[in-house]
Amino acid sequence: MSLAVVSFSGGLDSTVALAIAVDSYDEVVALSADYGQRHTVELDTAARIAARYGVRHHVVDLTGYGALTTSSLTSDEPIPHGPYDEENMASTVVPARNAVFAMIATGLAESLGGGDVILAIHGGDHAVYPDCRPEFLASAAATAELATDGNVTIDAPFIHMSKTDIVKLGATHHAPLGETWSCYEGGRQHCGRCGTCTERKLAFHEAGVPDPTAYADDTLYRHGQQVPA
Amino acid sequence: MSLAVVSFSGGLDSTVALAIAVDSYDEVVALSADYGQRHTVELDTAARIAARYGVRHHVVDLTGYGALTTSSLTSDEPIPHGPYDEENMASTVVPARNAVFAMIATGLAESLGGGDVILAIHGGDHAVYPDCRPEFLASAAATAELATDGNVTIDAPFIHMSKTDIVKLGATHHAPLGETWSCYEGGRQHCGRCGTCTERKLAFHEAGVPDPTAYADDTLYRHGQQVPA
Repeated sequence: MSLAVVSFSGGLDSTVALAIAVDSYDEVVALSADYGQRHTVELDTAARIAARYGVRHHVVDLTGYGALTTSSLTSDEPIPHGPYDEENMASTVVPARNAVFAMIATGLAESLGGGDVILAIHGGDHAVYPDCRPEFLASAAATAELATDGNVTIDAPFIHMSKTDIVKLGATHHAPLGETWSCYEGGRQHCGRCGTCTERKLAFHEAGVPDPTAYADDTLYRHGQQVPA
Repeated sequence: MSLAVVSFSGGLDSTVALAIAVDSYDEVVALSADYGQRHTVELDTAARIAARYGVRHHVVDLTGYGALTTSSLTSDEPIPHGPYDEENMASTVVPARNAVFAMIATGLAESLGGGDVILAIHGGDHAVYPDCRPEFLASAAATAELATDGNVTIDAPFIHMSKTDIVKLGATHHAPLGETWSCYEGGRQHCGRCGTCTERKLAFHEAGVPDPTAYADDTLYRHGQQVPA
């Protein structure tokens, strides 16, 4: 019996990863983390999408780890606006976050008898987050295998894909893209201006997939410049 | 300024690691984890020893991770008795525990400006715990460096040492060996019969260092056989 533990935020990327895993594995478990992020809407969204797919969903409490480290995602520092790939997004880094998540997911997969851990890291994450790069992933995968006598492997199927590719793939797999949450702000609607919102909007536009998201600001930006309609 | 984050359980090995780190680094932070282990005496001991050295001590709450995984250390399963290196100790494995701890310590070190993470893994741990082996350590160290753009390295100074070597080293560095806690049982005194107690007793004996520990059962065993006095 094949098992996948999907590191699952309820965001667009990990929802597409979950949709594909459900089609590919006998058993799928969705694993979210509460690391003290200011928007619990993310965890509510994750629970709703996991329930839609009928998969087991665990939320691991990592608020203690969040409190130990520094990041504008877990503090009162203002969230930076503007393009996702710029220098100012660096304050949204939770140090070693993917490394911690990957190893906790590895522990869970091992305790369920072994299987694959799926991380929905993608190409656009590389510039800002060191723990989203292919060389990090290869090393983390080796570490997980060594930590479990080869019972658990880590896979990142989107690591060489763009967000646009993931939107296309999600549309093909009928993933509930409209239900996913991307915004770094903690509002009830996507702000449309933070790094992940501008990236999300542009990805739907470039994929040629209708964007079901209601944004507070639906202007389309590319590299900080408004895209002509 | 040099920084060390010592993964610190209040046990013998990590207390010796802390004693050496205090002599070698400008700043030392002790990091313990509460993963739902049944004996909080371990955390109390850690706090007391960290206070004695005047170093900052953080306890990160990982009970959520402990609850996700399976181990006799965090459940009601009986603790196995007998030699530390035997097959029956396998139920004391918390899956991927060192991998998770190492990455959380990495996140903390990174948020403090970068430095070294010290793990007190030793040679005797290799047989039972896959995430205590040299090849695991090398891979985890590479993963930590990649996750932090080279700001954090992981070191395991005892990885090729025996427990006996560590007792000798601790005596040299005047580490408070008598205050440390090893027992896997949750009693008020070292039981003297569980895997870590028998290993501890034998290490003092072989190091020729007087053992300050009060054991409920102070018989000396080697490979399950009583050692003649």
